[in-house]
Amino acid sequence: MMSKAKAMVFEAVGQPFSQIQMELPELNTDEALIQIDYTTICTSDLHTFYGKRGGACHSILGHEIMGTIAKIPTEGIQDYHGQSLQIGDRVTWSVYAHDKNDPMAKKGIPQKSGDLFKYGHEPMTGHNPLNGGFATHCHLRHGSTLFKLPSNLSQKEAAPLNCTHATMAGAMRLAGDLNGKNVLVNGVGMLGLSACAMAKELGAKTVFSMDVDESRLTYSKKFGASIGLDAVLTASEVLDLIAKEGGIDVVIETSGVPSAIEKSMDILNIGGVCVMVGAVYTQRDLAINAEHMVRKLLTLKGLHNYAHDDLRFAIDFLSKNHKKYPFRELVGAEFPLHQLDDAFELAHNGTYYRVGIHP
Amino acid sequence: MMSKAKAMVFEAVGQPFSQIQMELPELNTDEALIQIDYTTICTSDLHTFYGKRGGACHSILGHEIMGTIAKIPTEGIQDYHGQSLQIGDRVTWSVYAHDKNDPMAKKGIPQKSGDLFKYGHEPMTGHNPLNGGFATHCHLRHGSTLFKLPSNLSQKEAAPLNCTHATMAGAMRLAGDLNGKNVLVNGVGMLGLSACAMAKELGAKTVFSMDVDESRLTYSKKFGASIGLDAVLTASEVLDLIAKEGGIDVVIETSGVPSAIEKSMDILNIGGVCVMVGAVYTQRDLAINAEHMVRKLLTLKGLHNYAHDDLRFAIDFLSKNHKKYPFRELVGAEFPLHQLDDAFELAHNGTYYRVGIHP
Repeated sequence: MMSKAKAMVFEAVGQPFSQIQMELPELNTDEALIQIDYTTICTSDLHTFYGKRGGACHSILGHEIMGTIAKIPTEGIQDYHGQSLQIGDRVTWSVYAHDKNDPMAKKGIPQKSGDLFKYGHEPMTGHNPLNGGFATHCHLRHGSTLFKLPSNLSQKEAAPLNCTHATMAGAMRLAGDLNGKNVLVNGVGMLGLSACAMAKELGAKTVFSMDVDESRLTYSKKFGASIGLDAVLTASEVLDLIAKEGGIDVVIETSGVPSAIEKSMDILNIGGVCVMVGAVYTQRDLAINAEHMVRKLLTLKGLHNYAHDDLRFAIDFLSKNHKKYPFRELVGAEFPLHQLDDAFELAHNGTYYRVGIHP
Repeated sequence: MMSKAKAMVFEAVGQPFSQIQMELPELNTDEALIQIDYTTICTSDLHTFYGKRGGACHSILGHEIMGTIAKIPTEGIQDYHGQSLQIGDRVTWSVYAHDKNDPMAKKGIPQKSGDLFKYGHEPMTGHNPLNGGFATHCHLRHGSTLFKLPSNLSQKEAAPLNCTHATMAGAMRLAGDLNGKNVLVNGVGMLGLSACAMAKELGAKTVFSMDVDESRLTYSKKFGASIGLDAVLTASEVLDLIAKEGGIDVVIETSGVPSAIEKSMDILNIGGVCVMVGAVYTQRDLAINAEHMVRKLLTLKGLHNYAHDDLRFAIDFLSKNHKKYPFRELVGAEFPLHQLDDAFELAHNGTYYRVGIHP
């Protein structure tokens, strides 16, 4: 084991990361030290770095992380399933640590617990400053939820599990039974591709993808989408195009674009459900017709982050289906940790779904 | 049994009903002839009669009906539970008949089946012109769903079951588990009072009522509401008032007023659900903040009419709780059938939750 940790610190919007060294921490009860194997740059890392949203400085960004247990407390630690974890186990973990007795956790919404601690989002001033993915180590605090990774998943495949894929698993849960239903995935970036594949494996009859980018629509067909729809189409044009397929029962909305959400509500079949995941930025209000929602028994739901069991579902899903859908291709380039500035620049230009970092 | 049926026919908006006599029908398979015991005037009957919404003319209005089986086919008929019904049984029935093999019925939304036939809403030109509540008899067609009424329910209590109470049972189903939750009922007319009592019996911690009419707020406390809220209060005023109660987890929205729905979304706790039932008229679009819905994991649902099992729930609920809550008081006046014009005039002035008609 290395005697010191290295980390790339985010100090100011758009400024080069600064490389630091830190002592490895002593562990308290229920903590763990992870040697990071791989981190992928999430779109929200880019938003923080380029100032599109507020972010703690100084901080270590990066939350789509997987790694190997380097150190555990004397009394040991357990994973989500209650199994003991050992040094050397490959793991991922929920992006947030929290008090498992918090009222929100007991309501089944642990991601909104009062004392949430989000890896890759926190300042370095607290108890475990080594708390992000762009480093050699991550210090997991009490209240973290760990999962042992199946051996058949590569580092590139596993890193996005605890953000992209777990969130989409949550969206599937909110969408309800998809068996035999037609599902539209609005926006086929990383989240949308994950949604297409999950919906297909959950028994969707037909998966439709919608995006402004034709190459993304084409690529989504590798992930279970059967029909790609140009996002410039109006609701009635979409309805005409897909009439013989039986319309749309469920929309998974990853774009966050108000007009796309409104269009989703206009095209849903009676009894349809739209799950919004992408609308996490300031935007104009949606114009929603209540009478239309009542007469067609429509449902509109918002989802932010995920519950632990969604990450469990995502891991099982990816382990079972990673050969069927090319999740391995989604990391288009990778860099060593010290070249993080170059990695962010490449990630920002949007060529690849993900850019990977290996310490 | 009477040899002929009498009915009051709706011929034109705002015009006096015309009284007619008709031969009693011969029955086909799966049909039944009901001798009507009691019908209550629903708000939607008023909307049709006074031209606030389109309605078939000539037609027999009235759909909140209960009655006694007067005639069944030789091979008999069965109720919702598969039990044989007999002449003399007191019954109610789902407000619509439909093809039980229709795809929408198979999806669990029978009220949106393609060939829907709604009692009290259809022209008199078809196979069973005697199809509304303001008559001595109602001819139930194939595809109807009947329920035997518990003997402890009075006519006044039972008549609104197949519209008001069944619809509110559907709203409870869409709202999900209410146990330990705080429920706000927006609008405490007939629908809202039913919602208050059901929410309380389903385990709601605190039921709040909201209305523009203070006397209605006071009256709602007889139906399970603990705290009445003036509808002129802003979202932040409501939140201040109810902070120590723990906020609002579920809204049952019966008013249909856009600003009330928007306020509902503003005051819901994280993970909250708003079920819209009242927005069945043309109105401005709602302004809904998608980011707020995502970050707070909110759900907005529309409900129109109900599934048969909701009527089953409503009957069980009312039979069990009709002494606990004064449902018997809700019919404030009653008239014989031939005075239907007077009954509509009284119902229209809004003094009573319901006005009853007995043939």
